[in-house]
Amino acid sequence: MQRKSFATMECPIARSLEETGDGWTLLILRNALLGARRFQDFQARLGIAPNTLTRRLERLVELGFFTRQRYAARPPREEYELTAKGLDFVPVLLALAAWGNRWVMREAVAIECMDPRSGHKVEPVLVDRRTRRELVAGAVGLRAGPRASRQLRQALKRGVVLGAKRQPEVAR
Amino acid sequence: MQRKSFATMECPIARSLEETGDGWTLLILRNALLGARRFQDFQARLGIAPNTLTRRLERLVELGFFTRQRYAARPPREEYELTAKGLDFVPVLLALAAWGNRWVMREAVAIECMDPRSGHKVEPVLVDRRTRRELVAGAVGLRAGPRASRQLRQALKRGVVLGAKRQPEVAR
Repeated sequence: MQRKSFATMECPIARSLEETGDGWTLLILRNALLGARRFQDFQARLGIAPNTLTRRLERLVELGFFTRQRYAARPPREEYELTAKGLDFVPVLLALAAWGNRWVMREAVAIECMDPRSGHKVEPVLVDRRTRRELVAGAVGLRAGPRASRQLRQALKRGVVLGAKRQPEVAR
Repeated sequence: MQRKSFATMECPIARSLEETGDGWTLLILRNALLGARRFQDFQARLGIAPNTLTRRLERLVELGFFTRQRYAARPPREEYELTAKGLDFVPVLLALAAWGNRWVMREAVAIECMDPRSGHKVEPVLVDRRTRRELVAGAVGLRAGPRASRQLRQALKRGVVLGAKRQPEVAR
């Protein structure tokens, strides 16, 4: 994909996409969370070209999503183990999956979340940790964080609400 | 990006990526949620090539993220208005942003979420709507949905927990 690099932007979405923003990368993370650990597991499950898979895995190791663990000495063989950073991607993929079930799969839902202890169906919703209010369009604002640039701080000064009807647009 | 089409897969993540899985598309949705409505707003804010932006917006209209609203008759000018499907992408982007603040921005957080009424900082967490249990690695399972294929149903029969330590791998 040709595009400007997002790496220097201040937005955490843009910065996260720099690391994860291609379909294969997200599907590799998905399969790792489902238990895939070896090159051939990913390759067989995803039907991805080996050289593409090699590049994506290398990059995910560099970025700290995986560490390599040797599981055989001769010939040397390694598994890809998710780090805390990789494991913490679960809520992102589940939020995407829940949206996908609502708006893409609709009546054709093939996979749903469940509580592994009770077996009950689980419906993922994003809430504020403290107040437990649901974070949906019109009910979440953005503000400058501790390390915002002066320019960004200025742009966010009046506050911005995500998905609000008719509001002055913010610069990013 | 060259890859197999994800459109026929049963996984809601793969299916969602078919619609949203490129960085520009997610950033266009982000800016729309921040108040951008006109072609030139997106163009100026994102620094995206006009032909790339045209293609992405066309596709987002086709997929039902936006409707076009005419705001001037001569010459005809249209704004892009988010639909319910587009507005419902807020939790996905916020889950990604929260992960990005934790693992990419780290000590350099420039933007954070707030409650638009109180101004208090908000920390997005994904929970089950009913039990309010947090959905993190090791604590969420997957099961076949109502329209799963026989093959998928078989693969998920023993159950799978996302991000569990050492579990039998599931076929997708």
